[in-house]
Amino acid sequence: MSAPIIAIDAMGGDFGPRNIVQASLACLSATPSLQLILVGQAPLIEELVARHSGVDRSRLRIVNASEVIAMDERPSQALRGKPDSSMRVALDLVASGQAQACVSAGNTGALMALSRFVLKTLPGIDRPAMVAAIPTQRGYCQLLDLGANVDCSAENLYQFAVMGSVAAEALGVVRPKVALLNVGTEDIKGNQQVKLAASLLQAAPGLNYTGFVEGDGMYRGQADVVVCDGFVGNIVLKSSEGLASMIAARIETLFKQNLLSRTVGALAMPLLKRLQADLAPARHNGASFLGLQGIVVKSHGSASVQGFQSAIQRALIEIQENLPQRLHGRLGELL
Amino acid sequence: MSAPIIAIDAMGGDFGPRNIVQASLACLSATPSLQLILVGQAPLIEELVARHSGVDRSRLRIVNASEVIAMDERPSQALRGKPDSSMRVALDLVASGQAQACVSAGNTGALMALSRFVLKTLPGIDRPAMVAAIPTQRGYCQLLDLGANVDCSAENLYQFAVMGSVAAEALGVVRPKVALLNVGTEDIKGNQQVKLAASLLQAAPGLNYTGFVEGDGMYRGQADVVVCDGFVGNIVLKSSEGLASMIAARIETLFKQNLLSRTVGALAMPLLKRLQADLAPARHNGASFLGLQGIVVKSHGSASVQGFQSAIQRALIEIQENLPQRLHGRLGELL
Repeated sequence: MSAPIIAIDAMGGDFGPRNIVQASLACLSATPSLQLILVGQAPLIEELVARHSGVDRSRLRIVNASEVIAMDERPSQALRGKPDSSMRVALDLVASGQAQACVSAGNTGALMALSRFVLKTLPGIDRPAMVAAIPTQRGYCQLLDLGANVDCSAENLYQFAVMGSVAAEALGVVRPKVALLNVGTEDIKGNQQVKLAASLLQAAPGLNYTGFVEGDGMYRGQADVVVCDGFVGNIVLKSSEGLASMIAARIETLFKQNLLSRTVGALAMPLLKRLQADLAPARHNGASFLGLQGIVVKSHGSASVQGFQSAIQRALIEIQENLPQRLHGRLGELL
Repeated sequence: MSAPIIAIDAMGGDFGPRNIVQASLACLSATPSLQLILVGQAPLIEELVARHSGVDRSRLRIVNASEVIAMDERPSQALRGKPDSSMRVALDLVASGQAQACVSAGNTGALMALSRFVLKTLPGIDRPAMVAAIPTQRGYCQLLDLGANVDCSAENLYQFAVMGSVAAEALGVVRPKVALLNVGTEDIKGNQQVKLAASLLQAAPGLNYTGFVEGDGMYRGQADVVVCDGFVGNIVLKSSEGLASMIAARIETLFKQNLLSRTVGALAMPLLKRLQADLAPARHNGASFLGLQGIVVKSHGSASVQGFQSAIQRALIEIQENLPQRLHGRLGELL
């Protein structure tokens, strides 16, 4: 296999290019085969790179892009009005084969719209979905869609289930259990889309569809792949992030109450922070767009240096696992 | 004010009447003015009551109901096929004025369908909603709908917002901040129903509508009332329950690792359990049906004795606050 090359949208996210450049250079030193292309305002990026010593410039390219897509910009504006945005140029590098993946911490809606426009969806897929790994009592589950599609038909949910199953397989899960997120586990529960998607999934050959799962069942680890529309998925994910932060804050307060508990608190806090990070996957590990003819990983807008590194790492795994090609093959069988 | 009288569906829930009878008798001793009517299979209930000593029978009636609605029974079946169910008879007692509230741990869908049929909705309300208090970093917020209505129009969401605001006022919140749960806070975010509901709420006089709130913002305490459809609300609530349980389990494991941490763990566990209980409001504190011409509180199917007691307590507060009448008055102004 040739060396993996990842195009980085250096201008996206809430904190500008500083964190992104730092994370990119850290990945570059950690993975000797990796090549990166930093896309954005070249003079600014050059200056940020120059602050670091020992950078292997033979594996780092900087490509200029004059425009930046704002975090609150409408996707349609981003699509039509900014042909030279860092996000667009990074995706163009994937489309032209100069890179195998794109990582961005920018505007999610714009990234999805541009990805669809530039890379196109895989045959049989109407809409790409955003997926991330959520921790459960038994390990992890792949939750999708996380917000790319607020309104979904039963067919969309069906396609998400197929894509989530293939992604879980690529991550090493054997015969992943696929479930639809619902308000109950009985057949009569749920809205029309969910009920219809259930009947489509029951008839799907070669898919390990296990039925409906409730919100608590998801965290109990009842499924490896949990499917919902992007409205529900986004709210579940962000609520979970918020709840985990709240619990961590309360426990921190609790541990400050006396000397003995302060002592143990000091021991427990790193573990609690790790848990909290684990529970905010989009912020910390990046979320993948599935269903495109190329790899796109979305890092959280307010991701830390470490968070952005994890997103690059996820892109690297997907390159190694050849995810879009694997998806393409399985979709041919299943759709 | 006359003595509060509450009708208890003694047969609902996953564990049968034993917990419910025990919780009812505990409330009876704790609140000297309270009167209870236990509804269900009278010989069985009599036998369970007889196991307890010191019961003030002058404040306790047992009313026979020959049928029980199963937890997985279709609401339509419960409505048409079981005229003498414990749930139906308890609601009839409210409708006839013999009780001022009904508490049940039974089948949610059946309880909602029967409540609407027996008690009717308030003028201006198309569908009742289920609401519960969710802990946040700043206190509590009222989240609705929690699953009574899986598909909601913008008008439904608008009515939920009005009802939630009045309920929060009744619980002592001054000018409650009302928000719509959404996938972003910008105007362009969300599905059609949410966007349309936002424009209805912006135009509503006398309502402190503050815009969209995201899942993490809800737990940060950005609103006193958070409005969503029942599909989203149910999934958010159950995910939160599941996540809180998972975190509690992980922390418990963490504390078992060495002697020092075991010592503090033993001190911290009651606090963590309380936190966990706090984070599973439907299981522990009961959820109210809003928008009916009468008070109905739903306790979780697998509620503990204490959980069912909290549900009775919530019904008592709503009786004292005259919630349906307050709602009726405010709805006249706002709808």
